[in-house]
Amino acid sequence: MLLNVGTFIRSATRFSPFIITHSSPSSFCFSFSPKQTVSFALQSSQMASFTTLSQSPPKLLFRQLFEKESSTYTYLLADCSHPDKPALLIDPVDRTVDRDLNLVKELGLKLIYAMNTHVHADHVTGTGLIKGKVPGVKSVISKASGSKADVFVEPGDKISFGDLFLEVRATPGHTMGCVTYVTGDGPDQPQPRMAFTGDALLIRGCGRTDFQGGSSQQLYKSVHSQIFTLLKETLLYPAHDYKGFSVTTVGEEMLYNPRLTKDEETFRNIMENLNLAYPKMIDVAVPANMVCGLQDLEPKAN
Amino acid sequence: MLLNVGTFIRSATRFSPFIITHSSPSSFCFSFSPKQTVSFALQSSQMASFTTLSQSPPKLLFRQLFEKESSTYTYLLADCSHPDKPALLIDPVDRTVDRDLNLVKELGLKLIYAMNTHVHADHVTGTGLIKGKVPGVKSVISKASGSKADVFVEPGDKISFGDLFLEVRATPGHTMGCVTYVTGDGPDQPQPRMAFTGDALLIRGCGRTDFQGGSSQQLYKSVHSQIFTLLKETLLYPAHDYKGFSVTTVGEEMLYNPRLTKDEETFRNIMENLNLAYPKMIDVAVPANMVCGLQDLEPKAN
Repeated sequence: MLLNVGTFIRSATRFSPFIITHSSPSSFCFSFSPKQTVSFALQSSQMASFTTLSQSPPKLLFRQLFEKESSTYTYLLADCSHPDKPALLIDPVDRTVDRDLNLVKELGLKLIYAMNTHVHADHVTGTGLIKGKVPGVKSVISKASGSKADVFVEPGDKISFGDLFLEVRATPGHTMGCVTYVTGDGPDQPQPRMAFTGDALLIRGCGRTDFQGGSSQQLYKSVHSQIFTLLKETLLYPAHDYKGFSVTTVGEEMLYNPRLTKDEETFRNIMENLNLAYPKMIDVAVPANMVCGLQDLEPKAN
Repeated sequence: MLLNVGTFIRSATRFSPFIITHSSPSSFCFSFSPKQTVSFALQSSQMASFTTLSQSPPKLLFRQLFEKESSTYTYLLADCSHPDKPALLIDPVDRTVDRDLNLVKELGLKLIYAMNTHVHADHVTGTGLIKGKVPGVKSVISKASGSKADVFVEPGDKISFGDLFLEVRATPGHTMGCVTYVTGDGPDQPQPRMAFTGDALLIRGCGRTDFQGGSSQQLYKSVHSQIFTLLKETLLYPAHDYKGFSVTTVGEEMLYNPRLTKDEETFRNIMENLNLAYPKMIDVAVPANMVCGLQDLEPKAN
């Protein structure tokens, strides 16, 4: 794959400082990091340790966007201190693609990735539409999802956008290919870290496990080994919320999640007796989402 | 008024470092500041300048909560580094009071204020219900609103919660009593500042001006003199959003607000020709909201 402002690095490789530093025509960018530990908490020694090639330290621009009909959250992240202002969208919805792309344009960002945490069953992903509207954007999904995309990620991969990156963690159980994207670990990355959990972990809940290769046993293991092992202050951003919450933390869910605080057997019992209705969008959404939301999309090589 | 973890300070008075430092029974609190400039941006000299009496510098806990039916945002803010973890709610909705209070409880916060940016016409405020459920909470609204509350604020007032505070700015025009609450100015306060604009400024929009003493002329002046004079990176959190946006900035609205980027005459012309339907909730909501959402609430002295 050609080196770009966004690069993938396989597990065990550290974040690369290599970036192309050509200037960007966009001068409009508001940069801030999301919901971070207040600045005083940072040690001055950490400030001195910043050594990447860009002119200024990475600054995360972050927006949480909501699609009302399916109660889906789409997340926009960008490195605003990079000349290109490279950006990515996590879990875009087909119905709100124009809203999202307009915001990307207004903020002067360069969208490089349109990513999914998993093959959704309740809405059609916007990744295919985005690819049709913004040349050069690559769709991203896990290899384990079995669906089509430009880039397939595996556990431990790093997805970089400018000097920032996301780490890929496998969190199957809602579907067999679910992943959680976690912002980078290190002094030059946002603190606290932010995890985009898809449907693996919802605020005070979790995704159902009765379709798409779901497994309550697997989900329990995923959350406990891949999400609850993050620091307690880690911010968790789910793919959905139905009660008006926008964010939670590892610590909160470890204390108050009504399902995942239980032992595994109780959890499995809860999940097997939810008696939920057949997902009304599943027969439309899943086939479409297996091909980036566009059933006529040509498969692309990774 | 008795000194409390939350105190009001009239304009021109600087934020007081006086706080009661008795220990809190709550040990559960995740502290972080919202969407801040990344830590590297803070000068080390600013770190040394922190001199209040509490054991650690103030840390803002921030949550944005959504009520779907009226598309209302409620904001929870707390000083997590203060032993009492004093908290306030801005624009709570009656229907979601139990959700909000449960979150306050789970996070180990001590709710001291239930505030409104204005007398809402599209939903019933939760402040009265909250007062009934949590003894000691004071309702807050502007004096200019003409409605009942425990505390009436005026332009320039500072509302403190622990070592953090909100500044009150008068932004009439949607109603005659609208205010914008802005987080404090200074190195020991969140950066960038956050402004809770109520209906004065919405994301790429603004509140209507044809009821409740509304005035397009006044709204134009309010936004330009009280909101657009804040730094461009100031984060703006409105009382509503109907398109799934969660936050904007002064700089964005100065460039992209389709109404408020126009000259005053054009703005007034736009506002006078919106041809909006009569607000469906106004005849229920406004009388209720004039008395904290509870029509049988006894008036309290300030």
